[in-house]
Amino acid sequence: MRRVVATGTFDILHPGHIYYLEESRRLGDELHVIVARDANVRHKPRPVIGEAQRLRVVQALRMVDFARLGDRTDMFRPIEEIGPAVITLGFNQHFSEEELREALKGRGIQAKVVRIGEYTGDPCSSTRRIIERILETRGKQG
Amino acid sequence: MRRVVATGTFDILHPGHIYYLEESRRLGDELHVIVARDANVRHKPRPVIGEAQRLRVVQALRMVDFARLGDRTDMFRPIEEIGPAVITLGFNQHFSEEELREALKGRGIQAKVVRIGEYTGDPCSSTRRIIERILETRGKQG
Repeated sequence: MRRVVATGTFDILHPGHIYYLEESRRLGDELHVIVARDANVRHKPRPVIGEAQRLRVVQALRMVDFARLGDRTDMFRPIEEIGPAVITLGFNQHFSEEELREALKGRGIQAKVVRIGEYTGDPCSSTRRIIERILETRGKQG
Repeated sequence: MRRVVATGTFDILHPGHIYYLEESRRLGDELHVIVARDANVRHKPRPVIGEAQRLRVVQALRMVDFARLGDRTDMFRPIEEIGPAVITLGFNQHFSEEELREALKGRGIQAKVVRIGEYTGDPCSSTRRIIERILETRGKQG
């Protein structure tokens, strides 16, 4: 059983997320998704949708075998529990493959790190762009 | 085979959509979703995400057996093709059960119309509320 771990906030679900998760799923037999805790989203604005509901939407996706919220204090704990062969990063996830590899090594976790490329099929392929488009088109009306 | 048809724009996918589709799926053996064409969304602001991509996200949901875009000119044509036992309406879909029943009858379509209640588990249970929250919280920063 080759497990793959994908991670993310999955705030406003969009085609870029679907692509990231589908591509991640292809790299193994079982896809485990770790959904970021509200309190741990600190490198970008707080999510619009709360963590329990973001988890619920991710769990409804057919390529996702298991999904759970991240650990509040130790991001590597769920990875240790799952024991993946592969950990994927989305194209715009903020930490580098190299940093993650080093950190995993430091924890004794043997997992390949794979960066999934950008989904180019739609201009709204990131939550940031969707929010920008909403502010551009709807903000004027408000 | 008891088919259920659910319809919607599914612009920014949220827990209210998941609830609507899960509840719809329970009413039969096979869930068919008709995703509104961009050009046919006229009773509310144009979708943020294009129709092909909204379809792609809906197709990725595990409770959805089949999804397709609506007909450009005749909303009843896909319903005739699918031949559902049940058609569901979301809590905030703008036409009434009575109007829909009359229109179906006029087309000779035998299907039960069921209104799915509101999902109350999250304050962001409609796209409108999500957009409002984005404008409130992010619009100030821009």
